[in-house]
Amino acid sequence: MPAIPVGILGATGMVGQQFIALLAHHPWFQVEWLGASQRSEGKAFRDAAAWRLSSALPDHVANRTVEAATPGRAPKLVFSGLDSSVAGEIETAFAQAGHIIVSNSRNHRMEPTVPLLIPEVNADHLVLLDIQGTACGWKGRIVTNPNCAVVVLAMALAPLRQFGLKTTMVTTLQAISGAGYPGVASWDILANVIPHIGGGEEEKVETETKKILGSLSHGSVGFHPVTVSATTTRVPVHHGHTGSISVGLAQKPTPDAIIDAWRSFTGRPQTLQLPSAPPQPIVYLTETNRPQPSLDVDRDGGMTISVGRLRTCPVLDYKFIALGHNTIRGAAGAAILNAELMHREGLL
Amino acid sequence: MPAIPVGILGATGMVGQQFIALLAHHPWFQVEWLGASQRSEGKAFRDAAAWRLSSALPDHVANRTVEAATPGRAPKLVFSGLDSSVAGEIETAFAQAGHIIVSNSRNHRMEPTVPLLIPEVNADHLVLLDIQGTACGWKGRIVTNPNCAVVVLAMALAPLRQFGLKTTMVTTLQAISGAGYPGVASWDILANVIPHIGGGEEEKVETETKKILGSLSHGSVGFHPVTVSATTTRVPVHHGHTGSISVGLAQKPTPDAIIDAWRSFTGRPQTLQLPSAPPQPIVYLTETNRPQPSLDVDRDGGMTISVGRLRTCPVLDYKFIALGHNTIRGAAGAAILNAELMHREGLL
Amino acid sequence: MPAIPVGILGATGMVGQQFIALLAHHPWFQVEWLGASQRSEGKAFRDAAAWRLSSALPDHVANRTVEAATPGRAPKLVFSGLDSSVAGEIETAFAQAGHIIVSNSRNHRMEPTVPLLIPEVNADHLVLLDIQGTACGWKGRIVTNPNCAVVVLAMALAPLRQFGLKTTMVTTLQAISGAGYPGVASWDILANVIPHIGGGEEEKVETETKKILGSLSHGSVGFHPVTVSATTTRVPVHHGHTGSISVGLAQKPTPDAIIDAWRSFTGRPQTLQLPSAPPQPIVYLTETNRPQPSLDVDRDGGMTISVGRLRTCPVLDYKFIALGHNTIRGAAGAAILNAELMHREGLL
Amino acid sequence: MPAIPVGILGATGMVGQQFIALLAHHPWFQVEWLGASQRSEGKAFRDAAAWRLSSALPDHVANRTVEAATPGRAPKLVFSGLDSSVAGEIETAFAQAGHIIVSNSRNHRMEPTVPLLIPEVNADHLVLLDIQGTACGWKGRIVTNPNCAVVVLAMALAPLRQFGLKTTMVTTLQAISGAGYPGVASWDILANVIPHIGGGEEEKVETETKKILGSLSHGSVGFHPVTVSATTTRVPVHHGHTGSISVGLAQKPTPDAIIDAWRSFTGRPQTLQLPSAPPQPIVYLTETNRPQPSLDVDRDGGMTISVGRLRTCPVLDYKFIALGHNTIRGAAGAAILNAELMHREGLL
Repeated sequence: MPAIPVGILGATGMVGQQFIALLAHHPWFQVEWLGASQRSEGKAFRDAAAWRLSSALPDHVANRTVEAATPGRAPKLVFSGLDSSVAGEIETAFAQAGHIIVSNSRNHRMEPTVPLLIPEVNADHLVLLDIQGTACGWKGRIVTNPNCAVVVLAMALAPLRQFGLKTTMVTTLQAISGAGYPGVASWDILANVIPHIGGGEEEKVETETKKILGSLSHGSVGFHPVTVSATTTRVPVHHGHTGSISVGLAQKPTPDAIIDAWRSFTGRPQTLQLPSAPPQPIVYLTETNRPQPSLDVDRDGGMTISVGRLRTCPVLDYKFIALGHNTIRGAAGAAILNAELMHREGLL
Repeated sequence: MPAIPVGILGATGMVGQQFIALLAHHPWFQVEWLGASQRSEGKAFRDAAAWRLSSALPDHVANRTVEAATPGRAPKLVFSGLDSSVAGEIETAFAQAGHIIVSNSRNHRMEPTVPLLIPEVNADHLVLLDIQGTACGWKGRIVTNPNCAVVVLAMALAPLRQFGLKTTMVTTLQAISGAGYPGVASWDILANVIPHIGGGEEEKVETETKKILGSLSHGSVGFHPVTVSATTTRVPVHHGHTGSISVGLAQKPTPDAIIDAWRSFTGRPQTLQLPSAPPQPIVYLTETNRPQPSLDVDRDGGMTISVGRLRTCPVLDYKFIALGHNTIRGAAGAAILNAELMHREGLL
Repeated sequence: MPAIPVGILGATGMVGQQFIALLAHHPWFQVEWLGASQRSEGKAFRDAAAWRLSSALPDHVANRTVEAATPGRAPKLVFSGLDSSVAGEIETAFAQAGHIIVSNSRNHRMEPTVPLLIPEVNADHLVLLDIQGTACGWKGRIVTNPNCAVVVLAMALAPLRQFGLKTTMVTTLQAISGAGYPGVASWDILANVIPHIGGGEEEKVETETKKILGSLSHGSVGFHPVTVSATTTRVPVHHGHTGSISVGLAQKPTPDAIIDAWRSFTGRPQTLQLPSAPPQPIVYLTETNRPQPSLDVDRDGGMTISVGRLRTCPVLDYKFIALGHNTIRGAAGAAILNAELMHREGLL
Repeated sequence: MPAIPVGILGATGMVGQQFIALLAHHPWFQVEWLGASQRSEGKAFRDAAAWRLSSALPDHVANRTVEAATPGRAPKLVFSGLDSSVAGEIETAFAQAGHIIVSNSRNHRMEPTVPLLIPEVNADHLVLLDIQGTACGWKGRIVTNPNCAVVVLAMALAPLRQFGLKTTMVTTLQAISGAGYPGVASWDILANVIPHIGGGEEEKVETETKKILGSLSHGSVGFHPVTVSATTTRVPVHHGHTGSISVGLAQKPTPDAIIDAWRSFTGRPQTLQLPSAPPQPIVYLTETNRPQPSLDVDRDGGMTISVGRLRTCPVLDYKFIALGHNTIRGAAGAAILNAELMHREGLL
């Protein structure tokens, strides 16, 4: 089977580099186009941006010339790791020109006909693509993945919908890579905590979660009625967003029923054995001091959500800790899994 | 006025050293006795323990011989920074022998006739001392201060009792100094988060808070009916416990009313102008990204609780961030303020 | 005595803020003018820049309007914490207009008639000011302090000149505050070491040191003949540049003679009892694991150089560790001490 | 080919766990015996020690019972990651009983008939084993690898011997994992530098290096005449010891000749294509700010030494930066490579 050529928008940024790293040995997709801002245009990738990951920069990407972030020469399938300050217009231009944009940017996530996808949770939301072209006037399509903090919460909550999920409160402890590069100044975060994340992070958690967990009905997504309260903080960790989560559940399940629900949770990516699908999307850890970013964030290539410390919550019903890799499961890996699903569903 | 001689139990530990640092230039109290474990007994303090604070170790303490942790030669007033594994028995022995123990240890905090004191919040609980001697069979007395995470929560909540405080949920991000020395291994916490703190930390937050906020009635403390849910985590910060806090308030006050309640909050230490009393026990910060440990923890000698980010909570009523210095307002400074209050109230 | 009004160029930067903090309670100098880039011009200081230090921002500075970095309205004495990309031209303009610029910037340090001053080491170099006006065509004057890494090395070496100082090799471990704000990205330095510092840091160490240690002869400074080799690295520390230093000394003194030379080292600031002068410019620590940034950097207000671990060096003669506070003794505090000396020498 | 059974002494420690991780998928060696201290004896490994690495603990090791650190039931080939406080006696007992001990401990490194091996550098030193049995009275044998800081220096220097290596001065910035577990207290190292490493670290660097670089003559190793001066410091980094190194070279080669020497350096492990051999033992990086622990330490499974920043040294001849993974190339991986070489040389 010949490789499917893909492009990367925002290739020089933190998420763009993570796309390159994850696609270096991908069985289906091959990076054949790089788009970035004017500053990088016309340079070889290796000269346009310092490589900031510990895995090796593939030679064929290193030597590739970065092009303007305009449609035309890009392959049909384009991953977007663009900064939200520019993603809206650029992604729209690509969609209008017929490209399929699988985006990590926030700009189009909440549009009614744009799937906000976690393939294990709401693969059926892809049917929105049937009407997206007409609704938006696009020849191509846009599919999005959630904010990096949302994905941790939404995946941990998805298996709890069956218990009558009513309310959830989350305080996140988020890694610095979530802020891109250069992102947070070292002076601000070294041995410190910043109890706020800009760009409407808490609002994203409170709204995106409801769309992801929502049900498809008559061709549109009805938001899940769960009430969400989020506080988002930044901590000096490289990778891995941790959430301290409480939930109110109408049906008052036992702790064992909840743990079973997490452990048996599976979805389309596992059924289809997609290349980036973790064997078990959610792993429950029984040690009292887990999950931890430094020990658990890379499990199964960073695509697994690790959960632990399930306890009774005196205010709601239960509380627990969840952790996910913010630039893999929460960004580049999420988009790649979305594209893998679309490929197998015949949507590319 | 001659200085009041004081002793320090557990003088070589992290809290013991903080006692020494804070008392170095105290206007009333003078350190004249040091007690520690057998390992240190008979050594000059400077040889018994490495000094781990950035402030200078006073010469008169450095050269003082550390004695056994037994009553007898100690002054009447003794501060205790003992580890909880030994504090119970040792403090009891001192109280039986007639000493007044002002303790940071958890062991006696929840005993009915032992005040669990935050002088701005519940100075009236000191009347428990009238019956403590008889109830416990002690010639001396024991007074305690809260756990270092509790004090941040309890002070932030105290001014909210007037609004019908019903429920609170807190996730803490706690500094490493709270674990003593050597405490947390660097391998475990460098660029990491540990979502658990041993020794029943969460239970302490959920129970001590109710006693502190409780009302005195007929000579005993009735626990406050607030429902508390706590998750406690460790982050790579030197000093300063941060709390992400939500509250349910029966009377639905406006945000301004809450901020006014915090800013106008004051108590006996301020009225009596105690040496360690901060001018304003609670400071509300209006910047969107505050309070932060590195910027706010040392305010007014580390005795102020900094609060910020008051917002509506979709699940309860309001949410906010609070921060306090865990080894000063949450340990040694708290005990010293307790002793200052007792001195001015004629209880020493 | 009425306060001497002073201005601060580059007031919003890391060094500018340190100037403001150190001058908040200064007995002689009072901040009455703030200059910064166009972006800040016309704003109140509190709106022009986030305050990034843990000490309180004085109200009279917070409310002061930031002005353009042009001479005219500024007081005669102006401290400069300007970035080197703009400091050259701006400082020259101020000097031409008659201001006395006491600068932390590198731009004029190596000019023959500009003193590169450490008051304890080369206070006599101030006589260069006699000829500077004519030589440079300035109505005012410029005095500079060394690079923040140089000051640690130069102060530790100054007392060793008497032993026939021939060679020195230094590897520095430098704090992030030395890079200004936002400076080093947290992604680059968290739990990492960067073995390089931009802007010609190593060359500065190798050249400035020779000028500082040099002797005045016939109105000009002859460079000290010491051969210097420097490697400069960045480590995740807030404040404090550590140097691992080896020296070759012609006269082969004993270790005790070297330690005595450090401990007895003193200079004009101590004689004149300048407000910012540390009682002992160099402190030698006998503990085997000192000096350390977290324990020693703030000694005597950050104006003392801490030295330790003197040992025989198999390659040169001796080796040791030295530490200094980079934004105080190595920047703002250094400049203030320079101005204090100039005031007492009648040069303001 | 059937797997070769191996044992691990000190299996629960930091180096022991690294042995387990590296051997999890080894093509030749299979872990079939675990020895540790009395505290762990009789427990399943998973209960004896918390697993502290981010790679998965293999099930067959997790469930294996930890045995006493005494010979008898162990396989012939035993890796030792014992703490030096006990390694001397225990390893001797195993050697006497006929085991082949491939040790990371320092205790036997400097014994005349014990190879102190870096396979790329001094594979010929293995001939010492011919006389070791008789000399030491052992039925088995002991082979050692260098201290974790030494290996970085010795590998970087090995290709420079051809240029008349006379002197070297090194300042190390060493990772916390080098101190084992719990090792350095977080209070001591978070956002700090400790300019000293206990256990004679600097002396090890100054002596082991000479033995490793030495030549075999008449069945014994003559030490290399290079003069070595070392300063060792601890920095808040997880993995990776960085060295700032200067060298004096009699033949004054050009920089290009030195870089060529590093890049073309190869040895027996590469010739024999040993499983753990990196393709290129030394990689020279041309970026101005490399090598860095976070970007370079894991290159080729952590078995490569990364070098960069070659410059003229004003005091000696050249200076540069070198980096190696301290628990892989500097400990467990080093020992495994030693055993692989011995296997292929017919010495197991």
